[in-house]
Amino acid sequence: MNAPLPATPYPPAAPAHPDEVSQLPRDEALRRRYGPQEALPAMPASAVFDTLIRHRSVRAFSDRPLAAGTLEMLVAAAQSAASSSNVQAWSVIAVQDPARKARLSVLAADQEHIRRCPLLLLWVADLARLDRVAASRSIDPEGTRYIEMLLVGVIDAALAAQNAVLAAESVGLGTVYIGAMRNEPEQVAREVALPPDAMIVFGLCVGHEDPAAQTADIKPRLPQRAVLHREQYGAGTEPQAVADYDRVMNAFQASQGLRAADWSLQTARRVQNLRGRERLAEALRALGFGLR
Amino acid sequence: MNAPLPATPYPPAAPAHPDEVSQLPRDEALRRRYGPQEALPAMPASAVFDTLIRHRSVRAFSDRPLAAGTLEMLVAAAQSAASSSNVQAWSVIAVQDPARKARLSVLAADQEHIRRCPLLLLWVADLARLDRVAASRSIDPEGTRYIEMLLVGVIDAALAAQNAVLAAESVGLGTVYIGAMRNEPEQVAREVALPPDAMIVFGLCVGHEDPAAQTADIKPRLPQRAVLHREQYGAGTEPQAVADYDRVMNAFQASQGLRAADWSLQTARRVQNLRGRERLAEALRALGFGLR
Repeated sequence: MNAPLPATPYPPAAPAHPDEVSQLPRDEALRRRYGPQEALPAMPASAVFDTLIRHRSVRAFSDRPLAAGTLEMLVAAAQSAASSSNVQAWSVIAVQDPARKARLSVLAADQEHIRRCPLLLLWVADLARLDRVAASRSIDPEGTRYIEMLLVGVIDAALAAQNAVLAAESVGLGTVYIGAMRNEPEQVAREVALPPDAMIVFGLCVGHEDPAAQTADIKPRLPQRAVLHREQYGAGTEPQAVADYDRVMNAFQASQGLRAADWSLQTARRVQNLRGRERLAEALRALGFGLR
Repeated sequence: MNAPLPATPYPPAAPAHPDEVSQLPRDEALRRRYGPQEALPAMPASAVFDTLIRHRSVRAFSDRPLAAGTLEMLVAAAQSAASSSNVQAWSVIAVQDPARKARLSVLAADQEHIRRCPLLLLWVADLARLDRVAASRSIDPEGTRYIEMLLVGVIDAALAAQNAVLAAESVGLGTVYIGAMRNEPEQVAREVALPPDAMIVFGLCVGHEDPAAQTADIKPRLPQRAVLHREQYGAGTEPQAVADYDRVMNAFQASQGLRAADWSLQTARRVQNLRGRERLAEALRALGFGLR
């Protein structure tokens, strides 16, 4: 139990420049993703996989504008993701107006990177379009009143957004998801003129990383044995996996100049109190969702 | 209104072999993704983007087994996706036992590809782990009783799964999402021994495409103007965009040997009647979710 970390330095010193992370070899990227103790087998190789595993959230954006065609590229990537029964129950709102981004940042925990990023994408679970399409065929959109169809919209939006993230990263851009767009769902909806039966699932800041800011390293995740189950769900090895992860995350936080804290304690506190988001169901009803 | 399709053949003949699609140049892949009438600007280029836009769902799998390390590669890709506040509110169950896949296929609209694929991944919105982590810290996991935390689990699972899809496609594998895993949520949960506060969000079949089967082409999506809004939500151009898309999809369906049908009518009917999934809220409550 709790064997000491091996002598090989882990985690490494925080990277000095974004390029250091984007050029890491696969084995080193995986070591940072899991910490030094994860034993992974040899895996099939691809350049796409190398891009995927080097992901990090970027919160420090430079003033450099996006290249022409970037937004259309991100949307083409997003639309290429799978959609449940091809209903395409999502939309995306591209916000670039500084005043609107400033107002939205105030509604989303006052996050500075929302003001700084050149492009804020708001991902919409869009049952309103389904309502309109049904109306154009004189059909009652009974299904949009149910939780099932809300989940379809949320899933479709998430798959689409993740494709956009990977497309952005593949051309050297950084991104960060903004779950705090669910802090004040009705006010956010008013700001972007959402119709009933639509909600902002999350935001996504897109831009060039500020090369002068401290670069965040690849964040470690739980050991694979804690999230991967074979044939049936089982949590027998979880306590040790979580204890190992707490130690890896403590070392990682220290290396990033952040206060060390056990992941399990931080997560337990996060789950203890949703800090206002308990009222999401009420907000969704106010936005027109049936939630049946 | 309804200008005739241009003289350039669209859609092209159905591809004879998977490699035909996986080697399409970017412009041709985008033409198939949107139909011939979409006017897109020049975009930043990347090999990852080329992989993303060529996505198609694969439902015909060969007997060829997966290479060693494939599952661990998919999980590493999945864990590299962003997670809300790093709570990692998801798990994945890898099902390979033929008897279990057969039972699950019966619960999911009797889809043959669930039996045929060598690997079925079941993506779990896993609030049960959060409950256990909180209990290990003697903290009441009050937050897992709310719809907000269910959405966190669904979003985390979807982002993770989409990364796995792209990793799979990048090494030549095909995938298809199985939303029908929500047809019988309680029975599916029992089959894989889910604890309370966990649900299967969707399944994902993974395998090598059967080179002898008819290859599905890239499926067209709605024009960008129907899903991309600038600064605020607006649906003014939507009726024409949907009419254009109906025509593109009719031509596409015919090229694939499928019955031609307007997307707007199919989607309206899909939304009219959820065919049993109206009871998802009831099922979620039976699985322990508070849905507050």
